[in-house]
Amino acid sequence: MPIKLGPNAYGKNAVNLSRIIRHAGHHEFRQVSVSVQLTGDFDAAHTLGDNSLILPTDTQKNTVYALAKEHFTGTIEAFGLVLARHFVSRNAQVSKARIEILEHLWQRMSFEGQAHPHAFTGGGSEKRRAVVELHADGTTTVWAGIKGLMLLKTTDSGFAGYPKDEYTVLPETTDRILATECEAEWEYTAADLNFEELYQQVHLSLLRTFSTHKSLSVQHTLYAIGEKILEETDEVKEISLIMPNKHHIPFNLEPFGQANTNEVFVATDAPFGYITGTVVRG
Amino acid sequence: MPIKLGPNAYGKNAVNLSRIIRHAGHHEFRQVSVSVQLTGDFDAAHTLGDNSLILPTDTQKNTVYALAKEHFTGTIEAFGLVLARHFVSRNAQVSKARIEILEHLWQRMSFEGQAHPHAFTGGGSEKRRAVVELHADGTTTVWAGIKGLMLLKTTDSGFAGYPKDEYTVLPETTDRILATECEAEWEYTAADLNFEELYQQVHLSLLRTFSTHKSLSVQHTLYAIGEKILEETDEVKEISLIMPNKHHIPFNLEPFGQANTNEVFVATDAPFGYITGTVVRG
Amino acid sequence: MPIKLGPNAYGKNAVNLSRIIRHAGHHEFRQVSVSVQLTGDFDAAHTLGDNSLILPTDTQKNTVYALAKEHFTGTIEAFGLVLARHFVSRNAQVSKARIEILEHLWQRMSFEGQAHPHAFTGGGSEKRRAVVELHADGTTTVWAGIKGLMLLKTTDSGFAGYPKDEYTVLPETTDRILATECEAEWEYTAADLNFEELYQQVHLSLLRTFSTHKSLSVQHTLYAIGEKILEETDEVKEISLIMPNKHHIPFNLEPFGQANTNEVFVATDAPFGYITGTVVRG
Amino acid sequence: MPIKLGPNAYGKNAVNLSRIIRHAGHHEFRQVSVSVQLTGDFDAAHTLGDNSLILPTDTQKNTVYALAKEHFTGTIEAFGLVLARHFVSRNAQVSKARIEILEHLWQRMSFEGQAHPHAFTGGGSEKRRAVVELHADGTTTVWAGIKGLMLLKTTDSGFAGYPKDEYTVLPETTDRILATECEAEWEYTAADLNFEELYQQVHLSLLRTFSTHKSLSVQHTLYAIGEKILEETDEVKEISLIMPNKHHIPFNLEPFGQANTNEVFVATDAPFGYITGTVVRG
Repeated sequence: MPIKLGPNAYGKNAVNLSRIIRHAGHHEFRQVSVSVQLTGDFDAAHTLGDNSLILPTDTQKNTVYALAKEHFTGTIEAFGLVLARHFVSRNAQVSKARIEILEHLWQRMSFEGQAHPHAFTGGGSEKRRAVVELHADGTTTVWAGIKGLMLLKTTDSGFAGYPKDEYTVLPETTDRILATECEAEWEYTAADLNFEELYQQVHLSLLRTFSTHKSLSVQHTLYAIGEKILEETDEVKEISLIMPNKHHIPFNLEPFGQANTNEVFVATDAPFGYITGTVVRG
Repeated sequence: MPIKLGPNAYGKNAVNLSRIIRHAGHHEFRQVSVSVQLTGDFDAAHTLGDNSLILPTDTQKNTVYALAKEHFTGTIEAFGLVLARHFVSRNAQVSKARIEILEHLWQRMSFEGQAHPHAFTGGGSEKRRAVVELHADGTTTVWAGIKGLMLLKTTDSGFAGYPKDEYTVLPETTDRILATECEAEWEYTAADLNFEELYQQVHLSLLRTFSTHKSLSVQHTLYAIGEKILEETDEVKEISLIMPNKHHIPFNLEPFGQANTNEVFVATDAPFGYITGTVVRG
Repeated sequence: MPIKLGPNAYGKNAVNLSRIIRHAGHHEFRQVSVSVQLTGDFDAAHTLGDNSLILPTDTQKNTVYALAKEHFTGTIEAFGLVLARHFVSRNAQVSKARIEILEHLWQRMSFEGQAHPHAFTGGGSEKRRAVVELHADGTTTVWAGIKGLMLLKTTDSGFAGYPKDEYTVLPETTDRILATECEAEWEYTAADLNFEELYQQVHLSLLRTFSTHKSLSVQHTLYAIGEKILEETDEVKEISLIMPNKHHIPFNLEPFGQANTNEVFVATDAPFGYITGTVVRG
Repeated sequence: MPIKLGPNAYGKNAVNLSRIIRHAGHHEFRQVSVSVQLTGDFDAAHTLGDNSLILPTDTQKNTVYALAKEHFTGTIEAFGLVLARHFVSRNAQVSKARIEILEHLWQRMSFEGQAHPHAFTGGGSEKRRAVVELHADGTTTVWAGIKGLMLLKTTDSGFAGYPKDEYTVLPETTDRILATECEAEWEYTAADLNFEELYQQVHLSLLRTFSTHKSLSVQHTLYAIGEKILEETDEVKEISLIMPNKHHIPFNLEPFGQANTNEVFVATDAPFGYITGTVVRG
């Protein structure tokens, strides 16, 4: 059988862009990491070293900065659409452009209830993410997402009724800590929506369901979150959730003559349960 | 439209296992991180909180350690197959088990050409990886892979002949540093092969092609590596390569009255070119 | 000259402890990483392998969890003092115990202005830190600190008037982004203070000075912050600040026919300016 | 009491420099991260915002690259001395320059015993480090060091005979895994030594002692390593070692009806024992 090129793509990743948006009397500050990925007619580059259809990743990077001045003034979804349209419309060899933008969230400082005009704190693990895919035929898909959202509740979570075998050691429990570093990604039904408002709505719904759900397992909470978001937000076509179980394990105090009544825990990084699921309409 | 559960899976990740294999006169030492992922009939857990078909991830972890004593004595591919078969054969609700094993590579110390019987150095970024997928119907797929392999050559690499537009700044070059943190994953044609010998053969081929290829682009080298491996090793069905371009950019010494004749570089982490491709038979 | 043991110490690091403090109607949740370091009469362990004075680090770890139930109900400074006193009072061979506690900060969720009783978000890079040192003679020192506090202002920062030499390229500026990942550590004048109130006072002062100072350099802002804290808080004996300069560099848009009027920046991780200073009374 | 500036310093960190050294027929490749730290008369910058004595960290960075072409052709110790002398001799306000250089180690590829002229693999956690301090009065100190050296032995290590108290759980053992991520730093007796040869000698001695020592504790091995290096190498004035205990804990297989005869272990990251000591002449 002959050997040939299969699926392939390339682009510039981690284009770290920050942006001051200057208003009268106050500034906005935005910081993002942009990744561009192009799919298209790149066979000759691979097989012959012919670069005549390879738009350099350095040029892609410059384009991100150059277009940021005029076009990065609103949501990352909107900026992603501008970038995708630029690369597809200018490069006939590109069959699909995928733009991923991860936004670092800065909070405006506030003193005595007064918002500061130009000072911010940052550094949270939670990021906002947008992914835009544009095909040469005009087909456009927009996903929004959240990464690194640390969630924890100290009760209303249990895990019991599971199958036992000769390797079972875990005790059943009706009251445990539930903690996760949540990642969510949802697909929108269209590319011309109010992405800011929708994001805030989904984000709030996620937090609210996590906090109020009587959780019988991570899976149970994951589905409840997804179901509620689909119920509340028609513009969300489907949502995928990743909810690793960040275990907090009761420390055994019995050898020291103490009862550990769910108060003292070992927080562990590894191993960890890894729970993923997509909730769809169907 | 009703709301329902779509694709989902769960399991225990990052089960960090180390193993001494005791021979007369010397020890082997192996260290791996195992991840188990199960797919199956888990709807009731999500929608009803019914855990009767959810094998706890804690039990999965115990199983990895318990089976390690008898079964982790050879390749990670072989151990992955044992684990996958265990989970599929014991759990009727599981339609697919996916086992991923990442191996940390330790080197035996040696003094005056004498291999030490039980002392090792470690800590390389390069890892060996195996992925096994077993379906309930017996279908089995084995992938082997390399992660974190840092490769660099100081010449025999160029990039020229690419399209220019108004955002082009990059100068063409016929002599640059080519550096990458290579990730490779290849699918085997069968599940009963000599995984050790094949791994060493693919690994050597990858290094050799990287070092000797007259590279006209990262894509060009990526394809050359994949093509050579498929030519040499019939047991490899296809191979995917990820070769981020770890840029080393000539530092501009002209303001200081020096010519930089390709000697002094800035090593950058971000942004980086991200080049991916699969080479297939067909 | 004979060879002998010089300064040495040991202990358990990264004891990851989480704690639910149960109140009627709501829970507090705290998560810390505790490190114990003991100094003392450990010569025989080093030179002879005699462990009779080496309290195992595993025992140190157990002690942290065992004492947490009764004693970790308030500030990390107070818990650190309890731990230090335990190790010094129980182990005659220990001349000094140093306890470092790093606290991960969780925020209680709130919906429609209503604080949730047991759900939290976390994941910020900002940590609170306490260090306690207790000598066998009873001498006690307490430091409090902040780590990972990301601060940024979009104006009121400049850098000019510096010396030039043949390697100078940097343009002078009176308007730049000032960003830092601030680390602060201050020594208290006593060990029986209201550590919670003092911490909040120092933290607020730091943010306020950063936001309002007309900065002529990172050094200038660093000193202003330290000076203000010493002025306002008599219980702070001295304060050390580390303020790496997280550069946001204007991207050169001129090749693309645009003026970059301080709007579009490259956010870089390396290299970075590293500015440190201690402000003292004296 | 008046408030004033105490100890302070500043400089550029993480100047990532790579260097091709071109020989007839083959290339050397070196990659380092350089950090410059200056101490001196910087009070006015802090208290008044007067930058007239603040050599910009951007200029420091440029200087590193500019001097690399001529002067970074041998050891990192030698390059550090060149940089320190440059900053002290050119800047009267600088009372001390401290240069730290961390070297990433690349290995030349080799095929059939034939060294390749320009292809390398890298990525090890082990780094070589040099620190040079030069005072304005000419006093010079040079330290060399190793960071990130992962060492492990599967036997010849025990831990017993330690004190017990009510928090003791750890069983005594005469046969355990000893693993550490070793950091070593030694001070040389002079600044004009053969730094390459001495480094290799110390490095080999460290590995050899680790591998052959009958270890009764981490402390016992730490001291043995330091003592041997001081015995063998007169040019080493003293050596500090950091040897965190990377625990590999036997997994309890008894619940599953198996005996774990020191074969199957859990590799843990946290918590970890942290053992430090300096071995001196005196």
